[in-house]
Amino acid sequence: MKVLLTGFEPFGSETVNPSYEAIRQLPEHIGRAELVTARIPVSFEQSGPVLKEALAIHRPDIVICVGQAGGYSGIAMERVAINLQDASIPDNCGVQPSEQPILPDGPAAYFSSLPVKKLAAALRQNGIPAFVSNSAGTYVCNHLMYTLLHLIDRDHLPVIGGFIHVPYSTRQAAAKTPVPASMDLAQITRGLALAVETLV
Amino acid sequence: MKVLLTGFEPFGSETVNPSYEAIRQLPEHIGRAELVTARIPVSFEQSGPVLKEALAIHRPDIVICVGQAGGYSGIAMERVAINLQDASIPDNCGVQPSEQPILPDGPAAYFSSLPVKKLAAALRQNGIPAFVSNSAGTYVCNHLMYTLLHLIDRDHLPVIGGFIHVPYSTRQAAAKTPVPASMDLAQITRGLALAVETLV
Amino acid sequence: MKVLLTGFEPFGSETVNPSYEAIRQLPEHIGRAELVTARIPVSFEQSGPVLKEALAIHRPDIVICVGQAGGYSGIAMERVAINLQDASIPDNCGVQPSEQPILPDGPAAYFSSLPVKKLAAALRQNGIPAFVSNSAGTYVCNHLMYTLLHLIDRDHLPVIGGFIHVPYSTRQAAAKTPVPASMDLAQITRGLALAVETLV
Amino acid sequence: MKVLLTGFEPFGSETVNPSYEAIRQLPEHIGRAELVTARIPVSFEQSGPVLKEALAIHRPDIVICVGQAGGYSGIAMERVAINLQDASIPDNCGVQPSEQPILPDGPAAYFSSLPVKKLAAALRQNGIPAFVSNSAGTYVCNHLMYTLLHLIDRDHLPVIGGFIHVPYSTRQAAAKTPVPASMDLAQITRGLALAVETLV
Repeated sequence: MKVLLTGFEPFGSETVNPSYEAIRQLPEHIGRAELVTARIPVSFEQSGPVLKEALAIHRPDIVICVGQAGGYSGIAMERVAINLQDASIPDNCGVQPSEQPILPDGPAAYFSSLPVKKLAAALRQNGIPAFVSNSAGTYVCNHLMYTLLHLIDRDHLPVIGGFIHVPYSTRQAAAKTPVPASMDLAQITRGLALAVETLV
Repeated sequence: MKVLLTGFEPFGSETVNPSYEAIRQLPEHIGRAELVTARIPVSFEQSGPVLKEALAIHRPDIVICVGQAGGYSGIAMERVAINLQDASIPDNCGVQPSEQPILPDGPAAYFSSLPVKKLAAALRQNGIPAFVSNSAGTYVCNHLMYTLLHLIDRDHLPVIGGFIHVPYSTRQAAAKTPVPASMDLAQITRGLALAVETLV
Repeated sequence: MKVLLTGFEPFGSETVNPSYEAIRQLPEHIGRAELVTARIPVSFEQSGPVLKEALAIHRPDIVICVGQAGGYSGIAMERVAINLQDASIPDNCGVQPSEQPILPDGPAAYFSSLPVKKLAAALRQNGIPAFVSNSAGTYVCNHLMYTLLHLIDRDHLPVIGGFIHVPYSTRQAAAKTPVPASMDLAQITRGLALAVETLV
Repeated sequence: MKVLLTGFEPFGSETVNPSYEAIRQLPEHIGRAELVTARIPVSFEQSGPVLKEALAIHRPDIVICVGQAGGYSGIAMERVAINLQDASIPDNCGVQPSEQPILPDGPAAYFSSLPVKKLAAALRQNGIPAFVSNSAGTYVCNHLMYTLLHLIDRDHLPVIGGFIHVPYSTRQAAAKTPVPASMDLAQITRGLALAVETLV
């Protein structure tokens, strides 16, 4: 069994992205599962192709895309991706869509095929703040989640997949005024490991 | 040089108090300073006497009282204690004062003799979210801080002292809905160690 | 031209619902539009039938369902309803679904056919705090919005429709500790009137 | 009986200050009390002299200084002013003190001589969100409150006085992203009128 975890490069005014920092620190194996990772550009146009390539190379059974949700106080299991992109800041390539569909003929939304409530409960039972979120926003995170679930659906991939949002790392929060909620990178990593463990 | 750190027992609906959990995990020495600790009851009547006894036993040069501030996103260096107690819930002995002075003839307030801005900056530079707070509330935390600073002032103790509020631990936050901001206990402990290091 | 506005009865521990209080105070006409209203039960099973009946009776051109979003600081134009019901508290009939579809064979989501960004901008330009929201939750509000958009879609109704969430009224907030964000009922009403005015 | 209410000029990036806008809209009499107002500059150096002049001219029995607390969800009765000024942004004259006493030989703090809990309760009973605050910050608001209470104390003025913080007006909040909590200016004015009514 193979699990692909993706994280994003930094964006906005940040120099790190806890999503990628965390998945890099995951072990190569959890239980009987092999873990592989990919780094996704914060780009409406390039994130999908990079994900598609990672799917082709690794042929994973489970895909968990991870992104940063600044200000969150826990790890958020995203329930649904919507067919819309609407950016309040440009992406890393300067693209800033306004109220456009991701896929003009695609369905309005895709639900995560991960058991989101079960995952949130598993993390909480292990002392990691977690919850289910009903919106992954309308920026590149939602775009990537929608793209992943669309590829699984369209190509009938034998894959379950979804998206997890993680808080600012403690280190990021320490540089901001006022101080936002955050989570230690080691705890974010532990939370993601627990999610994988729950799934495999 | 001796540093006394105090933490509180649990109160309200909590079964742990991160203030005491954190100080217990501090090393016995930081630089040339010896660290000693005391556990303070969450009691308007008993907290002062227990602190006074700890001061008499340990004769510290620096005293840092630590308490829990549920919902805080960082470590708060308290600037001032006010001569007032006003409790929205009873303390652990069932006492619930309403708008009473701590010390009928005492001054309206005492400022911390710790360098609060310098401490917050030191923590932030080391990646720990921290800030200065201008109110320690009107519950037992403020009562203890006022009592400490009053004892130092009245008895001309050669001591600098103050109060630090710490967030919920990650583990505490994981049991709450919605999930409040929190900090990993190891990071809280590291933050307190950095504060001691900055002072000595 | 006819506009149907719906509001909810109170739920949870509330004795009023600002959504219904506000629509009751709207005038009978705004510009060339006639306004009619309906009161919807906070019930997963009964809200849809009551809405359907109101649609049949009034044959409106525009439908705006309104609900309460406790803690919101402005009027939220909901962008999307998802095919899921998951209740953290029972509805007013004691029904509490957990992760069930609203319509087993329905699409994953429906987008509002109201111009949500334009509506939010119109309110803000007139001094009413407003924004676009990407989740109407998974309680009866989302259920009603999904049902409305499904009926429009399935029956090819010549109707545009959507959902607007309003904050606690100032009066509701005054009874809570700590005090949540709120909006004066007169301002909520004015915001809804502005939304209708923008649409007609 | 005469009541002096003061409000501030705008500061920071704001073009209005709801504290002054609200007191301007108060009636000339409430019950048997005559109301007079003054506009205070947002200046560490000039706010005190302007207040002192207003006290000399009007010889009020009650003084309520009012200021803006951006982000507050209700009207805050300030309990205490501390002898410290520490500004994160310059005042309107470009002055930005860092951790300085307001009055080098003054007491650490002064308590409001207004019945703060009673006032908050009176407003809440009338449907206006209100609470007691234990910190007026360390900017010009706290400076003015400290100065007022010092003048009353030093000169044995037969005056009761204190400070009330009010939220952003709804109009101010509508121009911000994300939308902060706010209160309709008419409700702020009504809250201040209720406070005066409770006092006289």
